[in-house]
Amino acid sequence: MTEVPVFSTLPNHNTISRAYEQIRRFVRTTPLIRSDHLSQLIHGEVLVKAESLQVTGAFKFRGALYRLLNLNHEQKERGVIAYSSGNFAAGLAAAGQILKIPVRLVMPHDAPKAKIQNAEYYGAQVILCHSVTPSREEAASDMARELAETHSATLLHPFDDYEIIVGQASVALELQGQLEEKNQMCDHLLCPVGGGSLVAGSSLVFTNVAEVWAVEVDGYQGMNLSLKQGKRCRADGSIPSDCDALMALEPGVANLDITLQTNVRGITVNSDTVHDAVRIGFQEMNLVLEPSGAVAIAAIMENPELFENKTVVIIASGGNVDPEKYASILQSKEDKKVSIRQ
Amino acid sequence: MTEVPVFSTLPNHNTISRAYEQIRRFVRTTPLIRSDHLSQLIHGEVLVKAESLQVTGAFKFRGALYRLLNLNHEQKERGVIAYSSGNFAAGLAAAGQILKIPVRLVMPHDAPKAKIQNAEYYGAQVILCHSVTPSREEAASDMARELAETHSATLLHPFDDYEIIVGQASVALELQGQLEEKNQMCDHLLCPVGGGSLVAGSSLVFTNVAEVWAVEVDGYQGMNLSLKQGKRCRADGSIPSDCDALMALEPGVANLDITLQTNVRGITVNSDTVHDAVRIGFQEMNLVLEPSGAVAIAAIMENPELFENKTVVIIASGGNVDPEKYASILQSKEDKKVSIRQ
Repeated sequence: MTEVPVFSTLPNHNTISRAYEQIRRFVRTTPLIRSDHLSQLIHGEVLVKAESLQVTGAFKFRGALYRLLNLNHEQKERGVIAYSSGNFAAGLAAAGQILKIPVRLVMPHDAPKAKIQNAEYYGAQVILCHSVTPSREEAASDMARELAETHSATLLHPFDDYEIIVGQASVALELQGQLEEKNQMCDHLLCPVGGGSLVAGSSLVFTNVAEVWAVEVDGYQGMNLSLKQGKRCRADGSIPSDCDALMALEPGVANLDITLQTNVRGITVNSDTVHDAVRIGFQEMNLVLEPSGAVAIAAIMENPELFENKTVVIIASGGNVDPEKYASILQSKEDKKVSIRQ
Repeated sequence: MTEVPVFSTLPNHNTISRAYEQIRRFVRTTPLIRSDHLSQLIHGEVLVKAESLQVTGAFKFRGALYRLLNLNHEQKERGVIAYSSGNFAAGLAAAGQILKIPVRLVMPHDAPKAKIQNAEYYGAQVILCHSVTPSREEAASDMARELAETHSATLLHPFDDYEIIVGQASVALELQGQLEEKNQMCDHLLCPVGGGSLVAGSSLVFTNVAEVWAVEVDGYQGMNLSLKQGKRCRADGSIPSDCDALMALEPGVANLDITLQTNVRGITVNSDTVHDAVRIGFQEMNLVLEPSGAVAIAAIMENPELFENKTVVIIASGGNVDPEKYASILQSKEDKKVSIRQ
């Protein structure tokens, strides 16, 4: 990504604060909601930061908005192009609409309808990519690169970009303020990870304050593998999953650069638990979470012993899910639904 | 309700402010979320106050908490008893748990499982009432009265109670602060109405500031009828409805007393539109709303011309709905789901 400015040192607190100030009047302050069920499970405190209630239904709006705000005049005129499996697409489209910057989006043909509609609703031009070779993400990325050249538009990467990471860090900064207001500490911060912009940004704010965890889903644990090896590794993507927003096979270069320096830890969950986590969002908190947005809840359910007696904040990163899919998740496993509050 | 103190004049702003101060550290500040779809529909601004995200999933927690805080020492020791179709039950149970006051609850046997479980989860003793004569609400009310005598417990009415109304008014006070922060006016405030504690409380805060509307569902429009006639009237309850929290056939005496003095206006919606409204909560806002909690959205959908070019605040009063019911609402009317964002 040659067009992305590279920081010689990590973005610091001032940079993140200034970014938050820039985007603040456009973003929603999302609520921090205690989960009694999960708190009981770990005999501690579990708080859920509901970015599913952010504009466009996911945290991605923050980074997209900050990135667009910092384009130069000519770039703004010519517009941007990006690929995305969905949430970055809607976030970028909405940011473009607010700032009157043309947005073209390449999306996988099998992205959730809700996400494609979202992007179109916010005035972006959506181009569907039908190729899945070498992966659906990479095919879409290649197509976006070609289109950017054709249209002299600025090509944006959905996550491998220091400015986007700084924009996403505003979630953590906002969270820090909310914790201070409540006089609450945070021992662990759990972030869903696709390419790693949320976890990288959050770790910049919470490094030396809390343990920050990158939560991935089985088969797509590129960040987990990379953190273990200390270098960029690739997951095999061989397991089917509903976590359509977390399907990047390897972390971004910038993202891994940061998470290695901030000592982020990795954790991987399986898809069945993710469905249980979606049901907890529904039943206990009245939050619609998409499967990708619920993986950090699943991480606690699978590993309560890791968080015993601690205060844990979970970022519920998004809530854009097709109604048919959501209904089928609610209707599966009758037994578990009834037992959530018991 | 002889045990309920009666105000000789209406509760004023100071009374409501003091009440809010008392309960503030226990309640959540619920977010105010703009609906693009509904705003477009009226060519104005529609904001949704998501009390579905309140502790126990509904605004009822506020009034219950305030009522319990103001019992005397002996009453606190002996505990309380109440009947409720569900949301007041959970709110009262949770408030009792926090304040260590024993709570017994009479609930209709066909109340949503989610609501019964909620009440039990918060440590209340739940007694199911199987009678539906003269109505499910009144049968449960009679049973609660008998049990209160047996146990020397304080009998609480779920809505016909000035203190509970003052507690619910905190929703409107909090909303007022949020509007001021955003520098936003409010022309219309729409409240779902069962017995009328939310609308009565809200009208105390917004009288002379905005038009306050009591939104009821067809067949259960006791408040609407009463406002028209200027005296307490009874709906016939003859139409089946999913709005289990709005099934009171007539408004409370205290509630109507207030809404008549504050010039509340009435509006009635039909159940089909309520399902569309629940889907908008899901699709556009990622909010799980129960049908009762979505009636004010339905009121805008049925009568956009009433609110043309105005700023409207909707209180989405609750989100406790069984997963089977919610899934069936999401799955019905394929065509409408797709068109929400177009």
